[in-house]
Amino acid sequence: MMFVAVIGSASCREEVAALAREVGQEIARRGAVLVCGGRGGVMEAACQGAKAMGGITVGILPGTERREANPYVDVPIVTGLGEARNAIVVHTADAVVAVSGGYGTLSEIGLALKMGRPVVGLGTWELRQGGQLVDVVVQADSPAHAVELAMALARV
Amino acid sequence: MMFVAVIGSASCREEVAALAREVGQEIARRGAVLVCGGRGGVMEAACQGAKAMGGITVGILPGTERREANPYVDVPIVTGLGEARNAIVVHTADAVVAVSGGYGTLSEIGLALKMGRPVVGLGTWELRQGGQLVDVVVQADSPAHAVELAMALARV
Amino acid sequence: MMFVAVIGSASCREEVAALAREVGQEIARRGAVLVCGGRGGVMEAACQGAKAMGGITVGILPGTERREANPYVDVPIVTGLGEARNAIVVHTADAVVAVSGGYGTLSEIGLALKMGRPVVGLGTWELRQGGQLVDVVVQADSPAHAVELAMALARV
Amino acid sequence: MMFVAVIGSASCREEVAALAREVGQEIARRGAVLVCGGRGGVMEAACQGAKAMGGITVGILPGTERREANPYVDVPIVTGLGEARNAIVVHTADAVVAVSGGYGTLSEIGLALKMGRPVVGLGTWELRQGGQLVDVVVQADSPAHAVELAMALARV
Repeated sequence: MMFVAVIGSASCREEVAALAREVGQEIARRGAVLVCGGRGGVMEAACQGAKAMGGITVGILPGTERREANPYVDVPIVTGLGEARNAIVVHTADAVVAVSGGYGTLSEIGLALKMGRPVVGLGTWELRQGGQLVDVVVQADSPAHAVELAMALARV
Repeated sequence: MMFVAVIGSASCREEVAALAREVGQEIARRGAVLVCGGRGGVMEAACQGAKAMGGITVGILPGTERREANPYVDVPIVTGLGEARNAIVVHTADAVVAVSGGYGTLSEIGLALKMGRPVVGLGTWELRQGGQLVDVVVQADSPAHAVELAMALARV
Repeated sequence: MMFVAVIGSASCREEVAALAREVGQEIARRGAVLVCGGRGGVMEAACQGAKAMGGITVGILPGTERREANPYVDVPIVTGLGEARNAIVVHTADAVVAVSGGYGTLSEIGLALKMGRPVVGLGTWELRQGGQLVDVVVQADSPAHAVELAMALARV
Repeated sequence: MMFVAVIGSASCREEVAALAREVGQEIARRGAVLVCGGRGGVMEAACQGAKAMGGITVGILPGTERREANPYVDVPIVTGLGEARNAIVVHTADAVVAVSGGYGTLSEIGLALKMGRPVVGLGTWELRQGGQLVDVVVQADSPAHAVELAMALARV
């Protein structure tokens, strides 16, 4: 069984949510379990997509209440750790798909790269050092492409 | 959906494992999800029991590797937090059943009581202060009784 | 440099606070650093005692705000981890002195025993299994005795 | 009392270490406490600089052993949390100075921005989204400039 994390902001515009929904669908269609931070925005849209395709969703929540989870989370993990829970999202996954995203997403990208998890991005952060692009987030063209790449890289 | 945690040592005698297996069966039979630390001993036996009844099992692992999970864990959560992951086991559950158990189990009982989760014990720690029994761990007669009590108290 | 943790409730009666204050004084007098959860009650009294003797105090806070610390904490560590921060208090110390205490303290005693830290108690939890006293918390007669024992056992 | 975090890789070239050493000196000279991850490379050089100026250093360690700390750490906090400890480094500080740095540093930059801590960079990550530079890491010219900026922004 493969576990794919979807990371992104807890609130987002509808066009970003639409991308996340497709990512979730594609993860479920390919038989992987979707892992995320369990909240709204990109996380909720991805879970909704996965459930529409009969997939399984895990939400690793920052707070101390299960009701924080979005309604499409099957397995809510209540950590009480705040932002430190990002490390668990990444550790639990074989690969990570970043959909747009803010600073929390940036921290998860850093953790994923540190822990050796492949990161595929859809309109997410680009990273440079000394003016040079550091090409560690693989940029994908479409949700289907992102999930295909993430699962292929996770097998390497 | 109710989530019931089973806590106990990562290695145990067969008679303790037999109790844990029955606890797991009973949790699954009553339609709850079993949550545990994901490792061997009491945790493995409980997961085995739950799977034998078609239940769902979540293992919240201390280390950084999914392969630490016992073979009966459906959803392995890889925390990398060491013993600090005990707080997540307890936060994630509506009620806790302690089967025998060592010092790690004692820490989880303390956390569960602190967080207001009911704790039902089968041959586990008895707690005294100033020579007086502090009656906060409800002692059960049998695995079925333990799970029945745990689920009834969780609803209160 | 030795680090000694003082654990106990965030609110307590004055006679318990008086014991904690003496424990803090004794830790400072013997040149050790006091580690605690950084909040009120036993933690505050112990820090106050240590500061009265010119000692150094570390407070490992559960929340996300430094101002949670009691006024006698020199080094406030802001974890944002809630009760999971208890594991850090214990890991950071060479020995643990428990002064009275509730369920949070019980969880720290369990963690300390699990991690092989000596635990000395002043009117704290007594632990039994199968009706037998499990003699792992060393009971002390006085604050000075508790700190002397804790530091001697830490050297073993 | 102000707390300034220095983040960067656990191993680095000498010219990066020299920058970090100056950052540490400047933090101590201005009377702030230096907070870091407690290990080698940038962290060790910064602590060394701070100690050379009579400053105080706090090291928030990822593992379970105090001896992981570099020799210039005054207050070693033993978390056992692995990379999840990065959140504590950031929470504990009023401002963050990033010196060069790899993926762990990137995760800390993300967390700091998420938690509203100012981040000043010396040759560290530049962040873009949609091809646009996102100007949230304030780039400094020199170690002294970096610390001056960090402390000034922390007061806002």
